Amino acid sequence: MKKEDCIFCKLANGDIPTATIFEDDDFRVFLDAGPASRGHALIVPKEHYANLYELPDELAMKAFLLAKKLITKLTPVFKADGYNVIQNNGSAAGQTVFHFHMHLIPRYVGDDAGFGWKEHELDDGTRDEILELVKGIYL
Amino acid sequence: MKKEDCIFCKLANGDIPTATIFEDDDFRVFLDAGPASRGHALIVPKEHYANLYELPDELAMKAFLLAKKLITKLTPVFKADGYNVIQNNGSAAGQTVFHFHMHLIPRYVGDDAGFGWKEHELDDGTRDEILELVKGIYL
Repeated sequence: MKKEDCIFCKLANGDIPTATIFEDDDFRVFLDAGPASRGHALIVPKEHYANLYELPDELAMKAFLLAKKLITKLTPVFKADGYNVIQNNGSAAGQTVFHFHMHLIPRYVGDDAGFGWKEHELDDGTRDEILELVKGIYL
Repeated sequence: MKKEDCIFCKLANGDIPTATIFEDDDFRVFLDAGPASRGHALIVPKEHYANLYELPDELAMKAFLLAKKLITKLTPVFKADGYNVIQNNGSAAGQTVFHFHMHLIPRYVGDDAGFGWKEHELDDGTRDEILELVKGIYL
């Protein structure tokens, strides 16, 4: 089910365009608009679930398997040195959009992503360059 | 397979005692010795895999499903307001023990966990109190 006033429902279902790097029947994966690092992406289910508490078991399993597959594919693509996989539940935990999402944050030696985390602007040029880089990583 | 010089192999397999809050055939879940918040725990597979890249698909799916089930059970137990689920890969991403683990960090309105994160001491009294609180949450 979609939720009428949920921005991630619109993004995940393509009602609003996103910088999509992967899509299947269950999820859309797109670049975070306020990235902690170059390549910071979000795994977002197409159906509306507020958080991990609500996400059905099968989708939870698929989400983390997808994270594994994506970071495996993307690490060499981004020439990353590591990856944070972060999933926040509740405003006390820093969740700001109440539609389940999982952050995939590539990390680079000496980057300034820290944790908690500093947001940079995703300019169009960088976005397009990244989209180009990740073409053909569909699993 | 276990790795001879890996501390998490020893902890996960009970060769060194831990403040265990859950255990099944595949994983041990125990309190982090330098918690970001009250109840901060780690999901650790009993077999040795350095990170999510190495973790077999089936265990990856089980790990996140376990995270879901645990935070669902533990949130009311800890009277938490939310939860961070964090899984770091590579020293550039802040991984310090190179045996896959997933952080479950309960969050509380007004806590000082931040992200990145500030470590507190887990004193024996607090540890025992938490172990008592979570008794009987086996899934």
